[in-house]
Amino acid sequence: MSNFKLILAYDGTGLVGWQRQASGISVQGLLEESLAELDGRPVTVIGAGRTDAGVHALGQVASASLERAIDGRSLARALNGRLPPAVRVIGASPVPAAFHPRFDARAKTYRYRIWNADVASPFERAYAWHVASPVLDVDAMAAAARAVLGRHDFAAFQSTGTDTATTEREIVSCRVAGSSKDERGDRPLITFEVTGDGFLRHMVRALTGTLVEVGRGRRPPAWMGEVLASRNRAGAGATAPAEGLFLVSVDYGDYGEACG
Amino acid sequence: MSNFKLILAYDGTGLVGWQRQASGISVQGLLEESLAELDGRPVTVIGAGRTDAGVHALGQVASASLERAIDGRSLARALNGRLPPAVRVIGASPVPAAFHPRFDARAKTYRYRIWNADVASPFERAYAWHVASPVLDVDAMAAAARAVLGRHDFAAFQSTGTDTATTEREIVSCRVAGSSKDERGDRPLITFEVTGDGFLRHMVRALTGTLVEVGRGRRPPAWMGEVLASRNRAGAGATAPAEGLFLVSVDYGDYGEACG
Repeated sequence: MSNFKLILAYDGTGLVGWQRQASGISVQGLLEESLAELDGRPVTVIGAGRTDAGVHALGQVASASLERAIDGRSLARALNGRLPPAVRVIGASPVPAAFHPRFDARAKTYRYRIWNADVASPFERAYAWHVASPVLDVDAMAAAARAVLGRHDFAAFQSTGTDTATTEREIVSCRVAGSSKDERGDRPLITFEVTGDGFLRHMVRALTGTLVEVGRGRRPPAWMGEVLASRNRAGAGATAPAEGLFLVSVDYGDYGEACG
Repeated sequence: MSNFKLILAYDGTGLVGWQRQASGISVQGLLEESLAELDGRPVTVIGAGRTDAGVHALGQVASASLERAIDGRSLARALNGRLPPAVRVIGASPVPAAFHPRFDARAKTYRYRIWNADVASPFERAYAWHVASPVLDVDAMAAAARAVLGRHDFAAFQSTGTDTATTEREIVSCRVAGSSKDERGDRPLITFEVTGDGFLRHMVRALTGTLVEVGRGRRPPAWMGEVLASRNRAGAGATAPAEGLFLVSVDYGDYGEACG
């Protein structure tokens, strides 16, 4: 048996998300089918995190064990030959059997993209949340975002009905930025990028929805800290739509490096 | 009658291009149908340039005359309510009846995007030409591109079978640039942006195909000037695929400013 770490990019449009479901096309399902074809037996794929329906990935990480002897480059090529163009294996490397994409992850980075212009962009339909008006106050959003830095109880920013041992997470980096000017002198793209040791279900989308309330001027930047301290989901902003969210990368520290 | 200048963005994927055809969905056709609904009579739309099937636009310009009294903002909103999300009116402003999007254009800017990475990107499938290998020499491409600056006979870079009065055009700006590093330290996106007083059919795509020959190291940068001087289409590189091409903007100089 040889164990592989896979780095994946996918366009989540039209997919039911990472996890295999009773119906619909999932990234895990597509990978498991392609790997089963390659290995001539059922193969289980473990992912670093479950992305929801419509959420995208630039660097999702997964693992799978094959009986067949194959090198990483050939495995990536064989999988890309079988997968639809919406899902690409951008790297495959051998890792010890003990490697676990979820438990060994030190940090994950997510990016949320907002298209803040009167008219939607044909090119951002599936890759950003269209907030038509008003022009969002990016500085106020950036100030508000700083409140989430550090270790906090993020109960106010998780979907109701989820069941995790603890709602404490540590955010090590958090940034809101406006785009450079486009052809018409506008700055329509706003990006919220956040790195942490873990994320609750819908946490980035709930943080984004709350930041946009601040950006609209409905709440002051200090409100972010108040919502966080309240641990009350009902007090935060709405969950931003799936299509703006990208899982950018998963960091394994030195272990990940050693594992290739 | 009131005449309008329309600025349009569209995702050309799945469209037959700008011009109305016997079959298939065209941007001109979509606009004319929406305008006819609004004005209760047939409306003709004139575009600044005919983009081919699969080619995109960030700032195409068109004109149309309506009998109905309406302001620009309301017209844009009414059209966006009727058009598919792949086509957006990002601006509409009244112009003198004499305004002609093609004849009055001083300059057009096109951008060609190349995805230069081993593995295709799920997000660039329809918006860039995937050149898997080798890593292209961007500096050599930039040096080659400088040969087209100025007024030249571009016969070597037009599709055979086209019929224009002259194949002379003036290129006022021309730039090849690599992207900043991505999450994995790669620079997979290469952009070729060119501004000129006009372009022959497939000219930007033929220039791109020729630049990529240089980027691959098959030809030296000086080859670009030789191909140009030859006026021989057969000597140039292949026509790059439609999906990487964007009509960025159309410039009308002072007249365009005065026309809104």
